[in-house]
Amino acid sequence: MTTYHNEIIVQTTEGTDIIDLTSRVSKEVGQSEVKNGAVLLFVPGSTGALSTIEFESGAINDLKKTIERIAPEGIYYEHNERWGDGNGYSHVRAALLGPSLHIPIISGKMALGTWQQIVLLDFDNRPRNRRIIVQIT
Amino acid sequence: MTTYHNEIIVQTTEGTDIIDLTSRVSKEVGQSEVKNGAVLLFVPGSTGALSTIEFESGAINDLKKTIERIAPEGIYYEHNERWGDGNGYSHVRAALLGPSLHIPIISGKMALGTWQQIVLLDFDNRPRNRRIIVQIT
Amino acid sequence: MTTYHNEIIVQTTEGTDIIDLTSRVSKEVGQSEVKNGAVLLFVPGSTGALSTIEFESGAINDLKKTIERIAPEGIYYEHNERWGDGNGYSHVRAALLGPSLHIPIISGKMALGTWQQIVLLDFDNRPRNRRIIVQIT
Repeated sequence: MTTYHNEIIVQTTEGTDIIDLTSRVSKEVGQSEVKNGAVLLFVPGSTGALSTIEFESGAINDLKKTIERIAPEGIYYEHNERWGDGNGYSHVRAALLGPSLHIPIISGKMALGTWQQIVLLDFDNRPRNRRIIVQIT
Repeated sequence: MTTYHNEIIVQTTEGTDIIDLTSRVSKEVGQSEVKNGAVLLFVPGSTGALSTIEFESGAINDLKKTIERIAPEGIYYEHNERWGDGNGYSHVRAALLGPSLHIPIISGKMALGTWQQIVLLDFDNRPRNRRIIVQIT
Repeated sequence: MTTYHNEIIVQTTEGTDIIDLTSRVSKEVGQSEVKNGAVLLFVPGSTGALSTIEFESGAINDLKKTIERIAPEGIYYEHNERWGDGNGYSHVRAALLGPSLHIPIISGKMALGTWQQIVLLDFDNRPRNRRIIVQIT
């Protein structure tokens, strides 16, 4: 069994960004030439997360609103007193969603549903150059 | 290292369904004859999720109530304007919980706690024929 | 491909505990001598979870407060009527966060961000001797 390894780089904006990674991950799966296996995705950093959703502007906005209700940007966060960078809410959101995602590969394709896309959720309050690690076995 | 691959099919009902998959996954682990490894579970589709919980009607109802507080069915979802299928809340819930789960196998058995069961959470608002992908390495 | 397997044991206290596992997992990665692969972490039991966060007291307290808002300890849980152990909130919290975490290993090191630590979240309302399974491939 061989392990294929690569990175995807995405540029995010200032607010909460939800970015569709599906076509870029598909390309990596194709390049790996793995027919039956799995792809592990991981986002290094404590203000980013990975999940899947139907990538449609309505559903994306609904998810953003729900996350804003769960961990609102505007309330008091103790973390902000330490660094003064104001992203306490970003850390909490990322910890709740989680940094890793695993998707089976069957006959050379990821076993995603028709309306299911892979997304990076960048919760940081400043633009980031995000690295997503792609590992295919 | 060999990869064992199969699918579990479950029929869900109209509302939010939480279904115990433990015995069916255990059977797959047995059939795979893998003694030390891991099982990756994945639910294709953007309105389903996987997790573990003590499968006891009280705890299941408590989890359903908490999820209903986090992403209530009855509030406005922008997604519903696009397709009119009224399952905006289902997409948000599934994205928060996540579609993949990984469990180590030790001496031929999953390393679950005594009261820890594997569950499919089906958030869709219509009955679904759900496929759960089982991959054992 | 070989599989390295071990367990980390931690002693938790009565309330919600969030414990930094990073240095202990790093040690396991070193001992495994795996240069390119991944580490799977799994917490057996239905009142514990795993995630990553910047392990700084402010961020940890912020996460605890958010989880307390999502699934408050003091409200009614049906689960408590069954066993009378009063940890219904613990089960709900653990199911939302999830028991497994997967981190890539590159050149012998986990691909964590600089401020990203691995944490066990123990939600149980009594001290526990927690076992975290470490599997490296």
